[in-house]
Amino acid sequence: MADNLQVLLDHRPSGNVSPTNFRIVQAPVPAPGPGQALVRHMFLSLDPYMRGRLSDAKSYAKPQEVGEVMQGGTVGLVEASNNPRFKPGDAVVGMGGWQRYALSDGGDLRVIDAKAIPIQAYLGPVGMPGVTAWYGLNKIIAPKAGETVLVSAATGAVGSVVGQLARTAGARAVGIAGGPEKCGYAVNELGYAACVDHNSPQFAAQLKAALPDGVDGLFENVGGEPFQQTLRRLNDFARVAICGLIASYEGAPTALPDMRIFLVKRFKMEGFIVSDHMSVWPQALGELAGHVAGGRLKWRETIREGLENAPQALVDLLHGENFGKMLIKLVEPNCSDAVILSCA
Amino acid sequence: MADNLQVLLDHRPSGNVSPTNFRIVQAPVPAPGPGQALVRHMFLSLDPYMRGRLSDAKSYAKPQEVGEVMQGGTVGLVEASNNPRFKPGDAVVGMGGWQRYALSDGGDLRVIDAKAIPIQAYLGPVGMPGVTAWYGLNKIIAPKAGETVLVSAATGAVGSVVGQLARTAGARAVGIAGGPEKCGYAVNELGYAACVDHNSPQFAAQLKAALPDGVDGLFENVGGEPFQQTLRRLNDFARVAICGLIASYEGAPTALPDMRIFLVKRFKMEGFIVSDHMSVWPQALGELAGHVAGGRLKWRETIREGLENAPQALVDLLHGENFGKMLIKLVEPNCSDAVILSCA
Repeated sequence: MADNLQVLLDHRPSGNVSPTNFRIVQAPVPAPGPGQALVRHMFLSLDPYMRGRLSDAKSYAKPQEVGEVMQGGTVGLVEASNNPRFKPGDAVVGMGGWQRYALSDGGDLRVIDAKAIPIQAYLGPVGMPGVTAWYGLNKIIAPKAGETVLVSAATGAVGSVVGQLARTAGARAVGIAGGPEKCGYAVNELGYAACVDHNSPQFAAQLKAALPDGVDGLFENVGGEPFQQTLRRLNDFARVAICGLIASYEGAPTALPDMRIFLVKRFKMEGFIVSDHMSVWPQALGELAGHVAGGRLKWRETIREGLENAPQALVDLLHGENFGKMLIKLVEPNCSDAVILSCA
Repeated sequence: MADNLQVLLDHRPSGNVSPTNFRIVQAPVPAPGPGQALVRHMFLSLDPYMRGRLSDAKSYAKPQEVGEVMQGGTVGLVEASNNPRFKPGDAVVGMGGWQRYALSDGGDLRVIDAKAIPIQAYLGPVGMPGVTAWYGLNKIIAPKAGETVLVSAATGAVGSVVGQLARTAGARAVGIAGGPEKCGYAVNELGYAACVDHNSPQFAAQLKAALPDGVDGLFENVGGEPFQQTLRRLNDFARVAICGLIASYEGAPTALPDMRIFLVKRFKMEGFIVSDHMSVWPQALGELAGHVAGGRLKWRETIREGLENAPQALVDLLHGENFGKMLIKLVEPNCSDAVILSCA
């Protein structure tokens, strides 16, 4: 059995996060104590919310501790178990963090079916990002047939699900993404009616042209200057779900320069965090799994191999260099096979 | 019968509104045509929303036309009627505008009971301001018993009703008002648990001290710098009803400097205009009339006499020089009796 390679937060970033904020250590693989399961990770999930946890500013979640294993979502296989809910070989999703092996008392673990659905999808469309999309779209935007739903980061792990669910609900989905390749994918594969490249010098005019009927629901993942343009396109009584503001996590804050827009357009704006709404997860995951199994929900992944590449992958995610869900695939020593299930 | 004194919008303000933006004219008292009623006004309602209508910027209502009688809520008595719904002597509330007499086809008129309730209350707690308070509190904030509701312009026509309804709902109401006299009235008469003077140099510290459990519901009427301090006091999952931003109608825009607060606190913010929600008016007015008749709802009025003083009164309202509902009482020529009903 290999050592337990781990990525720790070495020190908090002062400015932009970089790989030097982390350090990689080797530790013995732990043995499960009473009630514990040992999980060998296959994929780590990289998500924008992680940037917030690197700071110790007051926020909705307690910050990542310095000197501790970086927290994060994981999928893997149970290697050994003293917990009757898990047996060796079970595929599980959990919060094992950036390490090869994690011990768990089972509280964060859920056994998943990795045969019908690829195991890493439980970190994407059938996991936290999928439920995030489901909650913001259904519980905040609640689109009616014929309405227009605008989605920023339209091809990302969350946005790609929002767009497809909106279309399923009979709404017209319009995306914003970075670059023609992502926009082409949004329209040709994800079913967006239109997609506007936020890097285009004609962004404002193109956005307006893509939204002849304005915006009834805005699912905001990004913030920054494009967000200011989207506000201009809101219809009266629009619903705005603030899911993320990735452009501001390391850049300038996204401001709302004149609150009178709330009176002129009488819209609703609501920030949300999916972990506040655990009661909807079973329903949401059930619907999302059905869509995936039925081929109605597509997604893309950017997979980097090797735990040691997680810090750089997080930096790249924060700069939009992913295309779809950003994942780290853990490759066993002496095993470069893409099908790592065979490399146990 | 006297002439029909009228106040017209002469030209739009470029900057702060002043009485010179209006002009006063005399016109013959019109005779009602088929289906019309002629109403003699007793009170004009002055309301902050009027400032927005003086501008021709895009907003939720079409702007006040230049050269036309200034629009606004009114109560009065039917003088003559060719409409079977109204008979001479009926007390009515309507949108007759800034003039002694108005013709109406009846679409804006509602017969009211001016015996049980003072007639001008139909422009205040049992009128548009009351329904505004009712809607924002019940439909957006929806306070639970024990929660804290913060109200700016706490003694104004809307705010005073919000505070009392919040207390009736079992919430702790905290007010913000301009000056010790208004704050004293808020606590001693309206039942606010505390009131903070936004003119105080220690406003931020006093606000914090008045809100030991934070803010679950914010009813915002003012905006400006005090609003920035209230945002700091919001609890997670707070509900913010944006009813007005009077500090910004002629001053600097009220900004929301960092949208990340939506993610940190996961609150909801919604702008609303009570005229969008006509379906709730009957229920709201019924409840409000019951509270007034039962002595559970108090209010104050600032009454200026004479139509010609309406422009200055609007200016004063926009600068917070009213104390409670701002009204213009129309005094008949040769009649200075306070009980103008006897001066017909």
